Amino acid sequence: MIELVTPIDLRSDTVTKPDEEMRRAMAAAEVGDDVLDHDPTMAALEERVAALLGVEAALWVPSGSMGNLIALFLHLARGDRFLAPLGAHVLDAELGTAAWLAGGMPHALHSLTPEAVVAAGGGESPYYGLKTTLLSLENTHNASGGTVTSAADHAALVAAARSIGLVVHLDGARLWNASVALGVPLTSLTAGVDTVQVCLSKALGAPVGSVVAGSASFVAEARRVRKMLGGGVRQGGVLAAAGLVALDRIPRLADDHAHASSLAAGLRELGWDVAEPATNIVLASVPDLDKTLLALGEAGVLASPMAGKVRFVTHGDVGSSDVAEVLRRVREGV
Amino acid sequence: MIELVTPIDLRSDTVTKPDEEMRRAMAAAEVGDDVLDHDPTMAALEERVAALLGVEAALWVPSGSMGNLIALFLHLARGDRFLAPLGAHVLDAELGTAAWLAGGMPHALHSLTPEAVVAAGGGESPYYGLKTTLLSLENTHNASGGTVTSAADHAALVAAARSIGLVVHLDGARLWNASVALGVPLTSLTAGVDTVQVCLSKALGAPVGSVVAGSASFVAEARRVRKMLGGGVRQGGVLAAAGLVALDRIPRLADDHAHASSLAAGLRELGWDVAEPATNIVLASVPDLDKTLLALGEAGVLASPMAGKVRFVTHGDVGSSDVAEVLRRVREGV
Amino acid sequence: MIELVTPIDLRSDTVTKPDEEMRRAMAAAEVGDDVLDHDPTMAALEERVAALLGVEAALWVPSGSMGNLIALFLHLARGDRFLAPLGAHVLDAELGTAAWLAGGMPHALHSLTPEAVVAAGGGESPYYGLKTTLLSLENTHNASGGTVTSAADHAALVAAARSIGLVVHLDGARLWNASVALGVPLTSLTAGVDTVQVCLSKALGAPVGSVVAGSASFVAEARRVRKMLGGGVRQGGVLAAAGLVALDRIPRLADDHAHASSLAAGLRELGWDVAEPATNIVLASVPDLDKTLLALGEAGVLASPMAGKVRFVTHGDVGSSDVAEVLRRVREGV
Amino acid sequence: MIELVTPIDLRSDTVTKPDEEMRRAMAAAEVGDDVLDHDPTMAALEERVAALLGVEAALWVPSGSMGNLIALFLHLARGDRFLAPLGAHVLDAELGTAAWLAGGMPHALHSLTPEAVVAAGGGESPYYGLKTTLLSLENTHNASGGTVTSAADHAALVAAARSIGLVVHLDGARLWNASVALGVPLTSLTAGVDTVQVCLSKALGAPVGSVVAGSASFVAEARRVRKMLGGGVRQGGVLAAAGLVALDRIPRLADDHAHASSLAAGLRELGWDVAEPATNIVLASVPDLDKTLLALGEAGVLASPMAGKVRFVTHGDVGSSDVAEVLRRVREGV
Repeated sequence: MIELVTPIDLRSDTVTKPDEEMRRAMAAAEVGDDVLDHDPTMAALEERVAALLGVEAALWVPSGSMGNLIALFLHLARGDRFLAPLGAHVLDAELGTAAWLAGGMPHALHSLTPEAVVAAGGGESPYYGLKTTLLSLENTHNASGGTVTSAADHAALVAAARSIGLVVHLDGARLWNASVALGVPLTSLTAGVDTVQVCLSKALGAPVGSVVAGSASFVAEARRVRKMLGGGVRQGGVLAAAGLVALDRIPRLADDHAHASSLAAGLRELGWDVAEPATNIVLASVPDLDKTLLALGEAGVLASPMAGKVRFVTHGDVGSSDVAEVLRRVREGV
Repeated sequence: MIELVTPIDLRSDTVTKPDEEMRRAMAAAEVGDDVLDHDPTMAALEERVAALLGVEAALWVPSGSMGNLIALFLHLARGDRFLAPLGAHVLDAELGTAAWLAGGMPHALHSLTPEAVVAAGGGESPYYGLKTTLLSLENTHNASGGTVTSAADHAALVAAARSIGLVVHLDGARLWNASVALGVPLTSLTAGVDTVQVCLSKALGAPVGSVVAGSASFVAEARRVRKMLGGGVRQGGVLAAAGLVALDRIPRLADDHAHASSLAAGLRELGWDVAEPATNIVLASVPDLDKTLLALGEAGVLASPMAGKVRFVTHGDVGSSDVAEVLRRVREGV
Repeated sequence: MIELVTPIDLRSDTVTKPDEEMRRAMAAAEVGDDVLDHDPTMAALEERVAALLGVEAALWVPSGSMGNLIALFLHLARGDRFLAPLGAHVLDAELGTAAWLAGGMPHALHSLTPEAVVAAGGGESPYYGLKTTLLSLENTHNASGGTVTSAADHAALVAAARSIGLVVHLDGARLWNASVALGVPLTSLTAGVDTVQVCLSKALGAPVGSVVAGSASFVAEARRVRKMLGGGVRQGGVLAAAGLVALDRIPRLADDHAHASSLAAGLRELGWDVAEPATNIVLASVPDLDKTLLALGEAGVLASPMAGKVRFVTHGDVGSSDVAEVLRRVREGV
Repeated sequence: MIELVTPIDLRSDTVTKPDEEMRRAMAAAEVGDDVLDHDPTMAALEERVAALLGVEAALWVPSGSMGNLIALFLHLARGDRFLAPLGAHVLDAELGTAAWLAGGMPHALHSLTPEAVVAAGGGESPYYGLKTTLLSLENTHNASGGTVTSAADHAALVAAARSIGLVVHLDGARLWNASVALGVPLTSLTAGVDTVQVCLSKALGAPVGSVVAGSASFVAEARRVRKMLGGGVRQGGVLAAAGLVALDRIPRLADDHAHASSLAAGLRELGWDVAEPATNIVLASVPDLDKTLLALGEAGVLASPMAGKVRFVTHGDVGSSDVAEVLRRVREGV
């Protein structure tokens, strides 16, 4: 007789489901037509996010991919070269839109240092006419295992980019995690950027939505591009209401980070090759990625592939007992 | 002393707000991660819409614009010419994406007849290499005042398009209205098309969402393009639940049509130049469009400009007493 | 026994072959690397064309299509709407690049009047966010049969476009013909435009090349876009030399116009339905286009289809005896 | 008194000027309209190049950039990922068109080995939907200093690409040099590729033109895309005639290679840090690139920046006495 186990889902923090409080907020949301006018709950969410990020204005978008796409589309002229860290979401996880749709020629930085930015973005390219115009940062950096860029390192990267005239966009899908892990305000991690994108639907647990933010004139243009891409919605307040609840939960991310650390420690005890996580992402090097993912799945532990490794992501629907259970299943079944 | 009146909003049927039943359904929705897996309520909605439209499969999208864009993107190679009726939403109301993003060279048909389709889409273009590959229909046709294409006319247009090898897409943002007005099933208005887009957020009253539908292979590709455009959402079931409630309300559209007819009759009595509406859109020819819209607004009647005329749209949040009140305000204030 | 006749080629004035003088000029041309530096003969040609057209600067391009494409690419933001006369080369004969590559949403004007420009380009489009930003003219107008726009009409169209804030591009592939037919300088037909494209390889007889012209800053940007499209060439002076010879031959176009007029008169005598040509293009309405073109070909007369009619184009390789022979062949063979 | 020296131009082999033989061939070329028909000299050139490269068919294009662009445009769907060696011309020297126009998301290979191809192009990308579909090779590799890929290495790279289902394009702008340096036929360096681009206007000395080649169906499509980009020309036979002469001169490239080797040896004697050139490109590492280029220019030696180094390119207009003179000027002036 086969005993079925309920899988514990660590593929991504996007799997979190809205809880009762969020659902009540959605059901009670004041709404309007956000294309013709400005949905009032949308407006409240956007204002609050802009304040948190220390920028003038913000715009709700259906996904982080659209937030990044809008920013890159508006910053890049067709044919401009841009820099991003190797493995960046805008390079590997957005179906090439930074290139074919936003119009940029990407250049991946294998090492994300101020010197590397200046070396790659400055210099001789005018010979061939290619202009480097943008640096796209990512904090936390997903493909590196949720690593954080400190406020000081962030400032140095922005300064380097500015010194050669680059615009700076920050993919902050998990910027909340960086802020909590570092114990610094979000504003110290957005200092100096032109635009930033943050996700409500990852660790914060909202069902749908991200926010792209920057100057008021950027957001006015972004609203137009959002409509182009088909991301303008009508009574979006029902989603924004969930986003407002999500924003109250930023401090809770410390729990996810503690769970990730416990998971990493437990896996190391089992002999796995796992680096200490900085936030809520645990990367494990394994000899055979496909085989390990399959074995994990059979044992009732859902993980995902990332940069050739196994990625486990902790999130609001995973408690400490779940971590213990994951370790038990791995010990017995993989 | 200024007496403020609550405006009656006839700018569009997109302004309808979700009612308690919809909100309850959203709050209770079963959800999952619709990017990694398939949100169960999304799946239920998509299956139901596909069945209603008589096609294999369907995909939820955040807006009708995205639904049309995905279909055109997948049907058109870069540089293909396509035909659409003059004033079509894909030509005038989607910020040019049919051209620059989907890749098509539009040709507007001033008269939408089978003969015009064959004349415009067939013939000598190979001399210059331009290939006409698509006919994009729109039923009801917004810019003409919500006019309907009958099942017979639809069949003749599709047959004409097929006779010269064209793919056919149908922008059915208000196809529900056409079906109700004609008293025919939706399937008789989608017969023979490759793809169709329908909106849940217009007259049906869902807060957010449309559906693009076609063959199973089309929908598989469409899912990928939706992700490209940033339209993939996570726990979208909260929105799909509203969509499922909306689908129960198709018969209610007969009320909107009756209200539109009453409004048109009333306006004609007041001396306005108004054609009899076929569905829920009333177009009035006026000497000075901007001035009339302003005067209407000051009288507490919100309308919109459309093809050089005043457009009034009836919808679920407008009852017969509202129509009477609109006529009273127009009579006294415009 | 089959007697083979040498076909008389009236498909287009692009078929003209360089004569001895041109070939000698090409063989003797002073050249340089026009990508790294500026080929001296290219520079001389560009300077001379700019002066003829009354603009600051000019840039050689391999084809008129590329000249138009570069201008539209630089004038249009992705999603901008532009106006062009029905049947314009940029709409029908450039494989859709004005849309998918330059980024514009075309709107064809069925009547090219100042009123039509203002009606189509002004007004309510902001409701949906679509911005009309460009008017693209064409003089002579190929699809209408080489018709000319007079200096006064041109000025009125430009003024209308300006009054609603549009940029103006002129596809002047055959502007030389308009100038000769009207007996006015080229500058009176380029007055007020932002950019203009003229062809050296049509009636003027150069083997390869067109020129796009405008402000100095436009041409600097155009040089960059030409490189993008792969139109930057190295020792292009060999082609520019032919272009310089071609420019000496503008007055000769009066002969082509006279030949076109003779041809039209002769065809009318034979009962054909032919309008009086304004320049070097004769359009004939026939009951069955494909059949007529086939019959003409069999009789040794090469013509082309254009806007549903038969198009005959006179050019430098066609003399008055050729016209007589064409008429003889038509009389006997078609 | 200032003594002016005639600069010796080693910036690129594109600076070569057509000699008398080429000019005579151009002046005598048989021509036709290559857009309407097929210019006979163009046809002869294309046939000869296809045979040399061992492929079915070939198409003349105005530049190598356009040849690469057409190939990538036809191979890539919008959003496809492609691999190319770090510093590839398609990445750095074509104004980003591989991305925004052809539609590809580039991934630069820091090490060009079969293992690196498989590691980068295979594997887990389906998680995010990104598909790697193309490997773009470059032989000789300009940014690495004209280095050659041997027939065996080429075969291994192609086999690796095939093993993971990639299409292979070869940017063979200087493939002639690789063939001569390796002493192998061109066909051994094109074995297994889908498409290849070769330049007539670099070391072979033709004034204008490149050729893109592949299957007959590819070339039919490429002809259409060339027209899209504005690269279709009329009496192109005048240029093709020069190309035919250029093809006779492939063996002469051995001289360029010898001159490059002499130059490198001489520079090393002067204490420069110069690797032994494999073909006609000499790269020198210098402490201050801008300063060195300026000093060289003042001494009458024109070089160019490439990958942070000084690049000297030998070519048909540079003889052994020129190399000696360059070394003299460097010794005395830099």
